[in-house]
Amino acid sequence: MTAPPTAGFDHREFQARTEAAQEKMEQAGLAAMLLTTDPDIRYYTGFLTRFWESPTRPWYLVIPAKGKPIAVIPSIGAHLMHQTWLTDIRTWDAPDYTDDGIGLLTRTLCEVTPHSAAIGIPDAMESHLRMPRRDLQRLEHELTPRKLVSDAQITRALRMIKSPAEQQKIRAAARVADRAFDRVSEIAAPGDALSKVFRHVQMLCLEEGADWVAYLAGAAGQNGYADVISPATDAPLRQGDVLMLDTGVVRDGYYCDFDRNFSIGPANATVTAAHHRLIDATWSAFELIKPGVRMSDLFEQMAAVTHPGTSDAVTGRLGHGLGLQLTEWPSILPVDHTPLQPGMVLTLEPFVSLDNGRIMVHEENVVVQDAGAEWLSTPQGRDIRVV
Amino acid sequence: MTAPPTAGFDHREFQARTEAAQEKMEQAGLAAMLLTTDPDIRYYTGFLTRFWESPTRPWYLVIPAKGKPIAVIPSIGAHLMHQTWLTDIRTWDAPDYTDDGIGLLTRTLCEVTPHSAAIGIPDAMESHLRMPRRDLQRLEHELTPRKLVSDAQITRALRMIKSPAEQQKIRAAARVADRAFDRVSEIAAPGDALSKVFRHVQMLCLEEGADWVAYLAGAAGQNGYADVISPATDAPLRQGDVLMLDTGVVRDGYYCDFDRNFSIGPANATVTAAHHRLIDATWSAFELIKPGVRMSDLFEQMAAVTHPGTSDAVTGRLGHGLGLQLTEWPSILPVDHTPLQPGMVLTLEPFVSLDNGRIMVHEENVVVQDAGAEWLSTPQGRDIRVV
Repeated sequence: MTAPPTAGFDHREFQARTEAAQEKMEQAGLAAMLLTTDPDIRYYTGFLTRFWESPTRPWYLVIPAKGKPIAVIPSIGAHLMHQTWLTDIRTWDAPDYTDDGIGLLTRTLCEVTPHSAAIGIPDAMESHLRMPRRDLQRLEHELTPRKLVSDAQITRALRMIKSPAEQQKIRAAARVADRAFDRVSEIAAPGDALSKVFRHVQMLCLEEGADWVAYLAGAAGQNGYADVISPATDAPLRQGDVLMLDTGVVRDGYYCDFDRNFSIGPANATVTAAHHRLIDATWSAFELIKPGVRMSDLFEQMAAVTHPGTSDAVTGRLGHGLGLQLTEWPSILPVDHTPLQPGMVLTLEPFVSLDNGRIMVHEENVVVQDAGAEWLSTPQGRDIRVV
Repeated sequence: MTAPPTAGFDHREFQARTEAAQEKMEQAGLAAMLLTTDPDIRYYTGFLTRFWESPTRPWYLVIPAKGKPIAVIPSIGAHLMHQTWLTDIRTWDAPDYTDDGIGLLTRTLCEVTPHSAAIGIPDAMESHLRMPRRDLQRLEHELTPRKLVSDAQITRALRMIKSPAEQQKIRAAARVADRAFDRVSEIAAPGDALSKVFRHVQMLCLEEGADWVAYLAGAAGQNGYADVISPATDAPLRQGDVLMLDTGVVRDGYYCDFDRNFSIGPANATVTAAHHRLIDATWSAFELIKPGVRMSDLFEQMAAVTHPGTSDAVTGRLGHGLGLQLTEWPSILPVDHTPLQPGMVLTLEPFVSLDNGRIMVHEENVVVQDAGAEWLSTPQGRDIRVV
């Protein structure tokens, strides 16, 4: 066991990210980029706060063609932003019912771009603009003849490849969840309400070092479950249930995202065999991973193991990227031919279909290295855990 | 102590919300409304999941002119959505790299609106559209000659007034935080790292009945703190520090949002007096509250107590709505003349300025009733708590 990594990053990491973006911006003909969401702004600045939970205030980051990013933010964030590597931090007293930062943002963008500039904003899948539509329309009007255009997925492409320091942080988050899952038998027994189990799993994650527990879903049922995104009900665990817990804990701003299945009491043959199949599918994808293999190859590999002979009928994705968010680009889908590259962090997430529409899912986290895959979560054995 | 309220709402509550929206839609000339975010969709449906943490999939809700809302959602959410009062649930296999729901959404909107309809979408402060910009542009194109226009803040206005059942849920969330704050002396002592205190406060909230802890911020420092949105560092608490903890716990989908200050060891005269002023300001606003009083009146009242003679210089807001989100419309600002109405749930959040740019903040949660304000959090006494 290595010690947890130091909090944050060396400033050179943010500088390298920014310069990599600026090189791609030049190729794409973008004079600047405008970012509005927590993970995108954090990627270039290190600005880490849970205050994004409040929808009141917009936050803006401008990446100019050269030099450091410029923050255009509510004054309530100035003190924290001044602790990052940024030096040009412009603030307004938000919320401002007359002009909630759009004037300041327009002046900033006009200052760093020529008259007829194209300014990139995220516009593709998995993105949204975290600002009121009315303010966006006002910004577009005030920027004319400058135009807001597609960012050519520059930030998404950069974020897809994790630096060694980022990998360390995801590894540390996964270790937290590993240790919490190892203690589930302390807090789950027949008769316990699922809602109570959910509370206590989150407490275990915190005790084991999570900064916060951003995600917990799961289910419990005989021979599998029907749904993997539901919150917990007060229904009690019963002997023979399969309990699935899927968590995304955050440590130093980075997520893990994996699940574990538990049999409440000894598992029957159906559940035992289903779990074997899940683990076999996960390992088969793990062993396939090396640079150049495609996301779609991982899909076909896992589907062939979990649904032998019927893998063409498998729908939904079987894994995805993760890092600054619980789920990130790309997806393990038949249509996603993204080639694996060193530094990509992925979930492997096969499912098996049981009777009556029930399923079981399994999930692990891996990082792609030059020589193949490396586990970030501690891989689960073939046999389902028994509580 | 009353028992916690039953989970969820009676279907009639969702029906009443929908019909109230439809009445306002008719007045505003809207043939339908389109919603994309967790709180807005949850308000009309009861669809409650932490899966929103994943940015991968867009979710759409259509409010037609008459009848129940129509869900246009990824198939992964179908099972859970079928447990709500909705009956028309249309799904696609997301993520779909060719058409991520826009075709289905277009067909649905065209089916329920006439050819030249105006379809409302949230566009004002505190709102954003949770969908990729490219998909929005495609939707606008495919809907032509139908137009996407401002929703006239219909959902924001409805959400601002909480039903008795909603008030019960916020009260239950506040009780959880009350009980957790009462136990802070169990987990915070001189020498403890602030990061450890943050973890353990979240554990206390869970132990006391939080479904999850959506927000925790705070700070510790001698004679106040410089910042109220930072995550915790590993710096140890010192004798004489003021520790501030501000939490938003979620119970059954509803938030509380309030803080408590603690003196590590006996408080000095400066801190004692500052805390008195905060509590006096909070009570002065509490006592002013009745239907018809304006948000701006609450601002002026609190600023006059915390900054006597210099209240004109007070910037930033001194409270806000809350409920389905940590912070909601409206704000306690000099420019916000929203009249108080029964059912509005607010934070009262004054601050005092200390030496060297340091501040102290205090926050309580109240609900406006016919006869005046009612505390939802248990109001803190004048003296700061001592750990």
